[in-house]
Amino acid sequence: MNFASYFPIWDKITPTQQQLLQQNAVSRTVDKGTVIHNGNADCTGLLLVRSGQLRAYILSAEGREITLYRLFDRDLCLFSASCMMNSIQFDITIEAEKDTTIWIISADIYQGMMKESTVISNFTNEIMATRFSEVMWLMEQILWKSFDKRLAGFLLEESRLEETSLLRITHETIANHMGTAREVVTRMLRYFQNEGMVRLTRGTVEIIDETALEKLQNA
Amino acid sequence: MNFASYFPIWDKITPTQQQLLQQNAVSRTVDKGTVIHNGNADCTGLLLVRSGQLRAYILSAEGREITLYRLFDRDLCLFSASCMMNSIQFDITIEAEKDTTIWIISADIYQGMMKESTVISNFTNEIMATRFSEVMWLMEQILWKSFDKRLAGFLLEESRLEETSLLRITHETIANHMGTAREVVTRMLRYFQNEGMVRLTRGTVEIIDETALEKLQNA
Repeated sequence: MNFASYFPIWDKITPTQQQLLQQNAVSRTVDKGTVIHNGNADCTGLLLVRSGQLRAYILSAEGREITLYRLFDRDLCLFSASCMMNSIQFDITIEAEKDTTIWIISADIYQGMMKESTVISNFTNEIMATRFSEVMWLMEQILWKSFDKRLAGFLLEESRLEETSLLRITHETIANHMGTAREVVTRMLRYFQNEGMVRLTRGTVEIIDETALEKLQNA
Repeated sequence: MNFASYFPIWDKITPTQQQLLQQNAVSRTVDKGTVIHNGNADCTGLLLVRSGQLRAYILSAEGREITLYRLFDRDLCLFSASCMMNSIQFDITIEAEKDTTIWIISADIYQGMMKESTVISNFTNEIMATRFSEVMWLMEQILWKSFDKRLAGFLLEESRLEETSLLRITHETIANHMGTAREVVTRMLRYFQNEGMVRLTRGTVEIIDETALEKLQNA
């Protein structure tokens, strides 16, 4: 495992900074389903993904969820280290969606480096802007895109990520990704089935007309 | 007009940086209703509010709006200078909600300063995190708070900002703030009126039972 080849701006930081980061990065492998960072718990640290897939989401007081974004190889998660910045006033939860290997970088160490290096602080700015953009995109979807189009898009994305047209996913899980209630998902999936776009069995959704789903998504 | 006393981290930057900022800050006074920055137009620059009130919002393709946050005295707006950062992939519109005086700081100048000063780049990080937190709060409201509670909260906030219980605002404008349709606002306001919480006339909403609205908002 080569930390240097995964940290995005490795070649732009000094040898001293490289050494400090490498010495303080702890590798960890977690099983699919593990919650790595829990919103209101301690400051976990920054997460750098080596392999696998993480999901960042928020939870309501009533236990409802919505997926904010996913993290893949070489992605760095800031919000698991929100103690680094006073102005981050929201909590997210990070869960492994596949078996995942990450490096955890201490928030203290990283914060110290941000204070002395414009390369690192500006890089951090760009990461935050990227996540902000993803959340703005999601907000526009929620506000202005009808649920049928969002669900079509979600199924197509899942199919791409899982590399299969047979998704092993419950209606409850889909509802948690999309910030809605299970009944709403079930109703729409049944409509999709009647239209010949998917086939439903207990615990699976099979995409049988990808083109129709794409057409619906972009309608 | 004293730029130095309005720029938030004036005492923490160098005399050279102070001079550069001051020389490149252009003062401008705009009337209520003026659109200062238009999402897909040029890179306006950073806006520092001297007095007045700005509203940042997004627009859908169909012309629907939702207010993201407000900016008051000493607030600095980054997203009117989104050309500064590649990773900002969304467009917002900035409009004066009251007669407003601002300084406009060139994006080029500011970007140059971010690249050479950790004080300025980390300050920029904190501003972005603040706006991100406001947007996350709004998203949670939209997802998980019923519309009656959101509307009660909106009326109370408007009343506080305008320092009056007689709001001169149309149902259309309220709908634009809240990212919904006019009919939805009208229906709920009529319900509030029937409950004795507000009194409606053409172009105004008068709050007549603030306590009841507060109770509803926090229910």
